[in-house]
Amino acid sequence: MSLSVDLNCDMGESFAAWKMGDDRAMLDIVTTANIACGFHAGDPMVMHETLSLARERGVQVGAHPSFMDLVGFGRRRLEGESPADLEKQLIYQIGAIKTMAEVIGHPIRHVKTHGALGNMAAEDRELALAVSRAILAVDPSLVHLAMPGMQTSLTAGEMGLKVGNEVFADRAYADNGNLLSRKLPGAVIHDPEVAADRVLRMLEEQAVTTVSGQRIPLAIDSVCVHGDTPGAVEMAATLRRRLENAGVAIRPMADLVDAR
Amino acid sequence: MSLSVDLNCDMGESFAAWKMGDDRAMLDIVTTANIACGFHAGDPMVMHETLSLARERGVQVGAHPSFMDLVGFGRRRLEGESPADLEKQLIYQIGAIKTMAEVIGHPIRHVKTHGALGNMAAEDRELALAVSRAILAVDPSLVHLAMPGMQTSLTAGEMGLKVGNEVFADRAYADNGNLLSRKLPGAVIHDPEVAADRVLRMLEEQAVTTVSGQRIPLAIDSVCVHGDTPGAVEMAATLRRRLENAGVAIRPMADLVDAR
Amino acid sequence: MSLSVDLNCDMGESFAAWKMGDDRAMLDIVTTANIACGFHAGDPMVMHETLSLARERGVQVGAHPSFMDLVGFGRRRLEGESPADLEKQLIYQIGAIKTMAEVIGHPIRHVKTHGALGNMAAEDRELALAVSRAILAVDPSLVHLAMPGMQTSLTAGEMGLKVGNEVFADRAYADNGNLLSRKLPGAVIHDPEVAADRVLRMLEEQAVTTVSGQRIPLAIDSVCVHGDTPGAVEMAATLRRRLENAGVAIRPMADLVDAR
Amino acid sequence: MSLSVDLNCDMGESFAAWKMGDDRAMLDIVTTANIACGFHAGDPMVMHETLSLARERGVQVGAHPSFMDLVGFGRRRLEGESPADLEKQLIYQIGAIKTMAEVIGHPIRHVKTHGALGNMAAEDRELALAVSRAILAVDPSLVHLAMPGMQTSLTAGEMGLKVGNEVFADRAYADNGNLLSRKLPGAVIHDPEVAADRVLRMLEEQAVTTVSGQRIPLAIDSVCVHGDTPGAVEMAATLRRRLENAGVAIRPMADLVDAR
Repeated sequence: MSLSVDLNCDMGESFAAWKMGDDRAMLDIVTTANIACGFHAGDPMVMHETLSLARERGVQVGAHPSFMDLVGFGRRRLEGESPADLEKQLIYQIGAIKTMAEVIGHPIRHVKTHGALGNMAAEDRELALAVSRAILAVDPSLVHLAMPGMQTSLTAGEMGLKVGNEVFADRAYADNGNLLSRKLPGAVIHDPEVAADRVLRMLEEQAVTTVSGQRIPLAIDSVCVHGDTPGAVEMAATLRRRLENAGVAIRPMADLVDAR
Repeated sequence: MSLSVDLNCDMGESFAAWKMGDDRAMLDIVTTANIACGFHAGDPMVMHETLSLARERGVQVGAHPSFMDLVGFGRRRLEGESPADLEKQLIYQIGAIKTMAEVIGHPIRHVKTHGALGNMAAEDRELALAVSRAILAVDPSLVHLAMPGMQTSLTAGEMGLKVGNEVFADRAYADNGNLLSRKLPGAVIHDPEVAADRVLRMLEEQAVTTVSGQRIPLAIDSVCVHGDTPGAVEMAATLRRRLENAGVAIRPMADLVDAR
Repeated sequence: MSLSVDLNCDMGESFAAWKMGDDRAMLDIVTTANIACGFHAGDPMVMHETLSLARERGVQVGAHPSFMDLVGFGRRRLEGESPADLEKQLIYQIGAIKTMAEVIGHPIRHVKTHGALGNMAAEDRELALAVSRAILAVDPSLVHLAMPGMQTSLTAGEMGLKVGNEVFADRAYADNGNLLSRKLPGAVIHDPEVAADRVLRMLEEQAVTTVSGQRIPLAIDSVCVHGDTPGAVEMAATLRRRLENAGVAIRPMADLVDAR
Repeated sequence: MSLSVDLNCDMGESFAAWKMGDDRAMLDIVTTANIACGFHAGDPMVMHETLSLARERGVQVGAHPSFMDLVGFGRRRLEGESPADLEKQLIYQIGAIKTMAEVIGHPIRHVKTHGALGNMAAEDRELALAVSRAILAVDPSLVHLAMPGMQTSLTAGEMGLKVGNEVFADRAYADNGNLLSRKLPGAVIHDPEVAADRVLRMLEEQAVTTVSGQRIPLAIDSVCVHGDTPGAVEMAATLRRRLENAGVAIRPMADLVDAR
């Protein structure tokens, strides 16, 4: 294979006195970091440290904004959230991290939405449009990293944003191209080697194979690995090793998208 | 008198479901608005609305950052706060509002610190340096609006920041040039006409007269009026009328400082 | 008419530096206060002051617990909230206010759920059961004040809790006995006299008449009046005057329920 | 030695999605748990789980209330906090956990203040009185666990509260009986065996020896071990083993105080 792909991971999700995940270990593995902006996790000190560590290791960085929901870690589905309000919340978060990253000398290159916001905007065109408008308003050169086929990805494309396509290393896919619900058997892949097999096949075929065996073609820019689950570092390290052994170049997502 | 002066007021201090002050009325009176950035008050929706209203009325805007202290409205003195942490908190806040103001098309021109942060940085050189570094890092063209003679004002000057000098319409001054403690009799002036008399004399003399009668000379750029106290709108309106009647031009602070 | 009814109002919804509603005025009108417990509004100082004022004026008090959602004022629908978690959140809130009320010497007599929690539990049997379990666990003598016919009211009855039935002075009813959505025309009644007419008819008939003219019989213990809308005090005062003029005795809800 | 002593540890300091410390391991070692009440750490779910685990293992529980300061983990010194406000904050917190513990069937037996509140109240008589008043108001049978000689301990005694005396296993003492500042060399003891030696000597002598060699006599009820520092579990386990080997009975603090 003479392929290139990015590995991305959510980071900077510690808050105040509380730690989450092993960001230092993950920064040695991934090429792109999605950094929490203080609304579901992260605070200015955590953000600054995470951005600084990423710069030292040459890991590209982006905003990982969320609903305003620290108590729920941005995972609570807030029904009825106004798209206009959401847009302002995103401008605030992206603006804060963009400025801090510039001060540090390691500018953000992309935006990836977090948790319930990501899930809901993927299905709700009005929320997806709010996400696209916010990114465009702050900096039209930012890449929107999202799952292909979802509303967020579609509206970003329509509005002229650059879009990065991500797949998940450890999740099965439903026939509609979305992730299979965690409640269903086989939804989460725990074996790093199995996950690596799947990712290699996805890259080879440039397609995702769903639970029923359907193949959905797509151009894959990035593979999302988790940083806060048990075995996360091993899963990511195994995937990276297997990819490299197969001759896949691991390169930052925004560079790949810009080079397309 | 052929003088010019600015009137500045803290604004955008509503939060979530709660309202504070009568920003719309104050925006018809003042020429500069210091807008809360979400750490002691304000949220992205409140910030957006306040910035938009200010743009409509031609009122200049700036960041009004605070300690991280929503519960205490930024008024609790946080002893032992690290200057390095504070610097990151300020970069975050100024970055968020700067970006939002640019999106709205009404860029911020200055920074004025809030509450306990303002009071403590005025007296503590390490905190003051952190404030100056944060402003300089985000945008060296921003004016730092502060009380002259205090540490914040001094470090800003040393580091090459533009500094705007403010006086208070409704407060008496101690002999060290700081505000007289609110606990002392006569510290707060409640009569709008008396406050106006004082401000006119300060402008005429370009000096502040302390409780003991000492005169401290200074170049006055701006007069701070409060927006959240009983009678705030009347106090501000009276002051503006009296200044205009005396032939004083009311012009935005950042313009005055840039024109010096 | 030789009827008795209670007037209840949500109170203590100020927070930190921010004020909401005119609790002092409402406490001169109503006979029952539902007091926020710190999760959507209120804080220990606000709770203490509200409880103390209610005691002075002989207004009965109860807990007004919410989802954990200060930013959304408890109005955001949190889909997927676990009933088991909710139960613990309610025990915490009811326990905190119950203890404080006892310290003040004015014990709480009831519980009324707030905002989105109230709306969702009214329709979702699992959430409703969690509410009933929490009340029962803290103090089985507490009355659950709720809209009759809804899940919260049903589960409370099944589990042996005392239930107080409330109607709304300023809202139209749908045919299913729930409030007509605010988005529909005529859902909210703004004219105090019209609202008073409606309430008097409800009391006379001991029934609610829906938008389509259907009559749903029910025993009415309390009329809910709002404290934080424009004209709230006038609406409540008008209603009280009209009720008294019609010979209706205004008595606290928990007393009425205990006397049934 | 035919002595008895308690081992106490702060617990339940996880919050929302974030974990802190290894409460399960510590609950196998200590006899008393001071449980966070949601103001600096903890939430209703964390509190419920911690109380339930403690009940299963027969570990006695108490409230570990704090200033309102989640962002600062209750460690920020809030200068100027009003004693009257603090008293209300404590009633709220103690009331919430007391109720939940009763619901679980494992009532709280004591109160120990957290972080900056503990440190400030130890030195400030007005704050200390507020702490004592709050405990007394909620439940006069609760033991106040505190450092002997400090204001909190003194006011508790004066007001008739039962007081438990604690010493620290891993901290050196200044000549005024307070802990030596962490900034000074030797202030923190990292070697578990050295810490155990010190504690055994304290128990034998029923006195604390200060850095300068002065001996301050006191009746020791409990030894505080930390749960959230590196090596915390080993430190606590070593101490327990050494105490047991020396024939010291490890018994819950509140029982010891009640049996005096």
